[in-house]
Amino acid sequence: MIQVPEAAIGRLSPAWRYCVGTGRFELALRRDYQESLALIQQEIGFRHIRGHGLFSDGVGVFRPYEHRGSRLVRHAFTYVDQVIDAYLALGIRPFVELGFMPSELASGDQTVFWWRGNITPPSSTREWIDLIRATVAHLVDRYGLDEVATWPMEVWNEPNLPSFWLDADQDAYHHLYEVTASTVKDVDASLQVGGPALAPGSSADEWLKRFAEFTAARGVPVDFVSRHAYSSGPARHVPFGTIQDLAPAATLLEQFAAPRRQLAGTALADVPVHITEFNSSYRPDNSVHDTGFHAAYLAPVLAAGGDLVDSFSYWTFSDVFEEIGVPTKLFHGGFGLLTHRQIKKPTYHLYAFMARMGEEILARGDDHLVTRDTDGRVAILAWAPVDLTGHSLRLSVPLDSAAAFVLQSSVSEVKGNAWAAWCAMGRPASPRPRELEVLREVAEPYRKHWSLPVERGRVTLDLTLEQHEVTLVELSPVAGS
Amino acid sequence: MIQVPEAAIGRLSPAWRYCVGTGRFELALRRDYQESLALIQQEIGFRHIRGHGLFSDGVGVFRPYEHRGSRLVRHAFTYVDQVIDAYLALGIRPFVELGFMPSELASGDQTVFWWRGNITPPSSTREWIDLIRATVAHLVDRYGLDEVATWPMEVWNEPNLPSFWLDADQDAYHHLYEVTASTVKDVDASLQVGGPALAPGSSADEWLKRFAEFTAARGVPVDFVSRHAYSSGPARHVPFGTIQDLAPAATLLEQFAAPRRQLAGTALADVPVHITEFNSSYRPDNSVHDTGFHAAYLAPVLAAGGDLVDSFSYWTFSDVFEEIGVPTKLFHGGFGLLTHRQIKKPTYHLYAFMARMGEEILARGDDHLVTRDTDGRVAILAWAPVDLTGHSLRLSVPLDSAAAFVLQSSVSEVKGNAWAAWCAMGRPASPRPRELEVLREVAEPYRKHWSLPVERGRVTLDLTLEQHEVTLVELSPVAGS
Amino acid sequence: MIQVPEAAIGRLSPAWRYCVGTGRFELALRRDYQESLALIQQEIGFRHIRGHGLFSDGVGVFRPYEHRGSRLVRHAFTYVDQVIDAYLALGIRPFVELGFMPSELASGDQTVFWWRGNITPPSSTREWIDLIRATVAHLVDRYGLDEVATWPMEVWNEPNLPSFWLDADQDAYHHLYEVTASTVKDVDASLQVGGPALAPGSSADEWLKRFAEFTAARGVPVDFVSRHAYSSGPARHVPFGTIQDLAPAATLLEQFAAPRRQLAGTALADVPVHITEFNSSYRPDNSVHDTGFHAAYLAPVLAAGGDLVDSFSYWTFSDVFEEIGVPTKLFHGGFGLLTHRQIKKPTYHLYAFMARMGEEILARGDDHLVTRDTDGRVAILAWAPVDLTGHSLRLSVPLDSAAAFVLQSSVSEVKGNAWAAWCAMGRPASPRPRELEVLREVAEPYRKHWSLPVERGRVTLDLTLEQHEVTLVELSPVAGS
Amino acid sequence: MIQVPEAAIGRLSPAWRYCVGTGRFELALRRDYQESLALIQQEIGFRHIRGHGLFSDGVGVFRPYEHRGSRLVRHAFTYVDQVIDAYLALGIRPFVELGFMPSELASGDQTVFWWRGNITPPSSTREWIDLIRATVAHLVDRYGLDEVATWPMEVWNEPNLPSFWLDADQDAYHHLYEVTASTVKDVDASLQVGGPALAPGSSADEWLKRFAEFTAARGVPVDFVSRHAYSSGPARHVPFGTIQDLAPAATLLEQFAAPRRQLAGTALADVPVHITEFNSSYRPDNSVHDTGFHAAYLAPVLAAGGDLVDSFSYWTFSDVFEEIGVPTKLFHGGFGLLTHRQIKKPTYHLYAFMARMGEEILARGDDHLVTRDTDGRVAILAWAPVDLTGHSLRLSVPLDSAAAFVLQSSVSEVKGNAWAAWCAMGRPASPRPRELEVLREVAEPYRKHWSLPVERGRVTLDLTLEQHEVTLVELSPVAGS
Repeated sequence: MIQVPEAAIGRLSPAWRYCVGTGRFELALRRDYQESLALIQQEIGFRHIRGHGLFSDGVGVFRPYEHRGSRLVRHAFTYVDQVIDAYLALGIRPFVELGFMPSELASGDQTVFWWRGNITPPSSTREWIDLIRATVAHLVDRYGLDEVATWPMEVWNEPNLPSFWLDADQDAYHHLYEVTASTVKDVDASLQVGGPALAPGSSADEWLKRFAEFTAARGVPVDFVSRHAYSSGPARHVPFGTIQDLAPAATLLEQFAAPRRQLAGTALADVPVHITEFNSSYRPDNSVHDTGFHAAYLAPVLAAGGDLVDSFSYWTFSDVFEEIGVPTKLFHGGFGLLTHRQIKKPTYHLYAFMARMGEEILARGDDHLVTRDTDGRVAILAWAPVDLTGHSLRLSVPLDSAAAFVLQSSVSEVKGNAWAAWCAMGRPASPRPRELEVLREVAEPYRKHWSLPVERGRVTLDLTLEQHEVTLVELSPVAGS
Repeated sequence: MIQVPEAAIGRLSPAWRYCVGTGRFELALRRDYQESLALIQQEIGFRHIRGHGLFSDGVGVFRPYEHRGSRLVRHAFTYVDQVIDAYLALGIRPFVELGFMPSELASGDQTVFWWRGNITPPSSTREWIDLIRATVAHLVDRYGLDEVATWPMEVWNEPNLPSFWLDADQDAYHHLYEVTASTVKDVDASLQVGGPALAPGSSADEWLKRFAEFTAARGVPVDFVSRHAYSSGPARHVPFGTIQDLAPAATLLEQFAAPRRQLAGTALADVPVHITEFNSSYRPDNSVHDTGFHAAYLAPVLAAGGDLVDSFSYWTFSDVFEEIGVPTKLFHGGFGLLTHRQIKKPTYHLYAFMARMGEEILARGDDHLVTRDTDGRVAILAWAPVDLTGHSLRLSVPLDSAAAFVLQSSVSEVKGNAWAAWCAMGRPASPRPRELEVLREVAEPYRKHWSLPVERGRVTLDLTLEQHEVTLVELSPVAGS
Repeated sequence: MIQVPEAAIGRLSPAWRYCVGTGRFELALRRDYQESLALIQQEIGFRHIRGHGLFSDGVGVFRPYEHRGSRLVRHAFTYVDQVIDAYLALGIRPFVELGFMPSELASGDQTVFWWRGNITPPSSTREWIDLIRATVAHLVDRYGLDEVATWPMEVWNEPNLPSFWLDADQDAYHHLYEVTASTVKDVDASLQVGGPALAPGSSADEWLKRFAEFTAARGVPVDFVSRHAYSSGPARHVPFGTIQDLAPAATLLEQFAAPRRQLAGTALADVPVHITEFNSSYRPDNSVHDTGFHAAYLAPVLAAGGDLVDSFSYWTFSDVFEEIGVPTKLFHGGFGLLTHRQIKKPTYHLYAFMARMGEEILARGDDHLVTRDTDGRVAILAWAPVDLTGHSLRLSVPLDSAAAFVLQSSVSEVKGNAWAAWCAMGRPASPRPRELEVLREVAEPYRKHWSLPVERGRVTLDLTLEQHEVTLVELSPVAGS
Repeated sequence: MIQVPEAAIGRLSPAWRYCVGTGRFELALRRDYQESLALIQQEIGFRHIRGHGLFSDGVGVFRPYEHRGSRLVRHAFTYVDQVIDAYLALGIRPFVELGFMPSELASGDQTVFWWRGNITPPSSTREWIDLIRATVAHLVDRYGLDEVATWPMEVWNEPNLPSFWLDADQDAYHHLYEVTASTVKDVDASLQVGGPALAPGSSADEWLKRFAEFTAARGVPVDFVSRHAYSSGPARHVPFGTIQDLAPAATLLEQFAAPRRQLAGTALADVPVHITEFNSSYRPDNSVHDTGFHAAYLAPVLAAGGDLVDSFSYWTFSDVFEEIGVPTKLFHGGFGLLTHRQIKKPTYHLYAFMARMGEEILARGDDHLVTRDTDGRVAILAWAPVDLTGHSLRLSVPLDSAAAFVLQSSVSEVKGNAWAAWCAMGRPASPRPRELEVLREVAEPYRKHWSLPVERGRVTLDLTLEQHEVTLVELSPVAGS
């Protein structure tokens, strides 16, 4: 029996919801996207949002033109403002990624993704600096310095991969970082800038070490360090899908821990570390993202990640995402916590359960996290380790009350699992309105409620979990009648 | 095993949702009321709504004043229009009850209810006729004759009870009926008028017989006949509550059947019969209305009532209702399908399940109703008879498909039962926002989904029901993969 | 020419929007009411709201019952919580008025208003104290002490009028005040309690003096002093209306000034003074409230009132109000800034114009108020004094810009005047949807925009006002092209 | 004086609002787009909507893949369904344009527009036929044949221009038309198919003649004939804008009239004629679209166009449109009736005024259109001919009433002109929230209301119009008091 102590052993770090990932910038103009984000913000409440493509052609910021034979540039923020206005109205703030390259400022035509993000260095450092300065100054002008100073600004994305940065040329990245960071600080020294947004893998360690050396040597500002974490192996492609091996979830926590360990003793030892992307598979067409397994797999990561880093940002909140094109089916293995049209996946509920945890941690283990909030409510997040076909826990929980009202909410391969229902429906590519309603209904967690006696200040709770089940049990004090 | 035939045995009558009851007229001005009605209309979809108090003082229609020594009357429709505008916007139409008496037109000061509906005849028949004419003409002017001709107009409420009509004086009622009906028809002959809105009980039979004789003898127009049905015995009061015996639900069906039987052979033999109120207990403080029992008790009534009458109107859609005063607790035994603030009761779900039934009836029995809709979906409403502690059914169901997607939604004393949760919470009189959220969550039916094979055009379905469980099972064809 | 100085001469006091009046408590349950308040809060933004009837029967707080031969009392907050939840969701807080008397706690049956507010002292001081304690403790429990400590609590309403307090018995009021204030402070000493909520008139001065003496002598807590202000004379009634003489608007400012003058030298000299009701006429059926005159009449009061008191609360924000019964026509001379169904009256716009004024006052005069906000925008509120048939102003306004964008918004007897349009329409008692749309359209201010040059840091502005015109002119800096 | 007759001279054709244009298909996924369309539908109410790009890559319909060495194709309707679901929810239906070419089905890489619509014939006729069949069959399956049979389906866009169809090869178009039309009819013969969607210009006449010959000779189905109309001359480009000459508006009416004249005597003489695009300038960066001039210029076209064709579709309802890239400023000369974020342009109001006209035409002239609706309201649309600096009209109007309520709504270069205000503000590229509010306010028409006497059944109305003013005057009967 897990004997949950009465005194708190710590406070729950907000790192798990500091940031969430999103598809490319202009997708935020869509209604489906904004409705999904509204739902997410209401039930989960992330603080920041980060995605690619701020400077890509679809956003239309960089606009060179000819005037009397000279090349001039207009910077246009039509869509930038529409998106950020919407973000702020929804209670979420940008985690700004400064990239990719506007095609008219690019030095080559190499692109990444179906939507063709240009991955080459600028053809003109001056024009790049002007672009950064104009953009950051515009943000400060429109939203105020106090606000914008809370938005971390990250230079580029995964420059250690040749698919994201031409030849994965580290010196070229260091140059880009230096001019970019300096320009941000020129606008205002209180703005936060960081990088190098490394993809996981063998090159990441070396890159981070050299990044620390380079920035220290040149006195380049670094307000935070960023890295990504994924736990899947190489992809085997099938039509409209991918099959991959997954490493144990602990691999993710190891990746989270790496930057601080590597930076110990450097000038960057104390700067915040942000995992600006993480997920199991890095592919947006891997069905694992749609399953109950995925919630159980990530549960220990969410419960413990905050010990290791300042944030870890789930990639991504919604299936409104087009890196490999327009999805051909409602469930297609996208990263989203939500599908198109707001069907909740089990991992959505893992996050929604986390949002109901209290501030104080009472206990934590391999299969549970126990918290208490200021109203005395004790919340228990428990999960079946993914290598088991089921699991039981018995807990003795302190509660300051005469009796407990118990509310249990669960997801698994069966419970609260719209993907399973969609499969049973015959996998309709584009469900009809009535089918969407049914999917929304069955996507809700199974909920049960009952009463338990409190004896000598304690409640005994027996939990039996199905395979891949994640459950939230809330014990609320019942006022004496 | 219930062998459900492939050919339809009839069509599901819309009588069950032709009308629903409501608290007094001006309560419809409230936001909680309108939000509740919006939810009801979205998930159930009633056609008409009927309640008391159109002419009571709170609506302010009848407005006598002195002018140069004479008494003149202004008729004011400020609130009438606000309410009916809102009804139409929500897709529901009035079933107009013409009553009670404005206090300035009353011949006595006897009232009914906490809100003091005056139950006496008019002090001036002329002013009453003017009131009816002005009101009906105003409705026709504002909403159009085509629209208003679809609104049944019922003269008074339960005149056979002395608490609703002074001394339960039948001759006085006949006089009121005659002048009222004639005035309605004067405005336009296509308008529908009826009565006598009888309370159940021993006097009802005699009243109805005499009403038929009177109206035939005098040639008074009667477009429909109306009666009420309740199945509870006398009330024993406890503080803020009531205890009553309930007769079996079949009693309600007997009451539904009575008017047509009694009117056989009279001039009213073929007019529509509307049960303009029905429920188990007639008390708005009887906890039975909040229970799972109530849904199971009424299930056979909803399944079969349409054979007997043109409508039977559940009294009432919402706990926003003040006949015995302002409720002191969220759950207080009110009539509502919904509590204040839209917590769904099990009986709400019984209605919502009915709204998912198809047009064709395939089978019907003591514990089930099976229908099919035009998309081939088969819907089974099944219930545990209330005198059993549980119940099982086995059905063989025809389905034109290779496989079936099965969705089951259930309520019982435990499942989808907010009242049980509220009790477990310690019966908070006025729950906090977070508690209201929890109650809304646990008020949703338990939902399960699975696949079943179709063999030789049939699905075999085994259902095991808890005590007082009502369940909806929907079998949808699955397109071949 | 009015030479507006460049340096601020003061800051605009928030007294004008510290509080607004409302019809009786349970009217706040209505949808029309809440939609009106939502509009008001969006465009004006009051901080508190005050009305009568918290303890009147329609709210259902005080609920005595018999139990084993004893009288016990339950306190029920069903509607209290619904209303205050709605207020807080709309961004407005209660200014709590503790009254009137529940009929089951009353010592007599004297009532005020169509809705019968009981005006007699409690029959049991103990039960009154219990009622106060239970209510205040409930509010603190539900909303938190930090929140409730910002809600002023006022004891009763206009006890110096026999229509509001039996015999206008001052000793009886002092007793009520003492036990009530002490009970509030018993719940928590940080709560604010005050009175005596005096009606204007000859008795007010004497009452206030004695109130100060009484509370000082007995050490009774007084956190603020309150009084009302109206400028109309006796009413002559016509059917569904009233005709009254109005004193000049300066009378209102004199009434505002009275409490501080009278309390100088007493123990209450430094407590905040709240004018918890003010208006021209005290009758809800005086057409003056619907006119353009009314806005022009009150403009100097809004511009200057903040010099004299901590707040002055317009009585009331909406025509959803039933002191003399249900209105018989859309425009009926109600107090509201808005009619039923949200038609804006000219006085609404006066308040909306005030809400656009800046923080710094640059100039103020008999016909104008000039402010500047932190963005450099200069806002000029100007009005035609009501005794003139028109009026002109010429101002030289400082502006830190190369050019000015000028936006002028005006209301008068013609401009932005829905009442005039409604009269021209033939005064439809209950306008049809299309007519309501037209009224909403024509209720918007006349708006004009143009550019003006800035010369040596100054803009010259010529304003010509129609009779009873109130105008807002906003001068915004134009960025150099 | 214009003597408006009492008897109707005709009925107002719905041709003016039968259809409206839109930016490319997937832009309809945006929130700004859908909010704009919601506003348009509420105040104007178009029946159909037509735009490019259904088969372009951004919609993702055509999805070839390799399977065991063969090329197979999946057709995906993820976005198609999202868009059409949204259209129907907003009360508007597609006018389906079948084009452009998916790049993986294209025979060349020529594209049109910033967003690269491929303009080449299919590389495989069989795959094109499969695409058409799959798409049309999917629509019928999802939305029902009754619904889809009301959606005209048009083959390609402006094939007579080499920028839209490779080499403007007419034989190739005829082939495409034939296989496409036949495939549509194969799905169901009741579906409507047509073309050839000709651009105006010298080639159009010859193309239409040959299209009629070809389809007659081959028995190819043609349910309607379509053509476009624009009145601007060649473009002179300046940075982010265009300057063009405009022909008189009558040119547009001549273009409308052309098809019927040309088809007289052919087999297509009696098929409906749809002008599936019209506007003044065909450039989305010509400031004329933002001006008051534009409304006055098009007023006679809207008033008379319905005599000539079955529809004429304004190109386009919103500035959410990207044919030449992302706009760099709020006002940029886009086609939209609304800017981004729903600022109404004068031409929006021209359409909103038309939507208030009655069913019966009483009079029509070079500067006016007079109608009456079933409530007796007379609506007068009047405009200042664009070559005048102002204009006056005097009308004698029949009205069946004792008095008239007159409501006048006007736009001009000053009135209801957000573009003028935006210029005065210094042309902010991306206005701040407060500036957007001001622009929305000043974009409303100037509204005035007054009363007029009716003498011998007639009202005399004097109208004085500013330059480029368009005004709507509504005369409503006033009920006698």
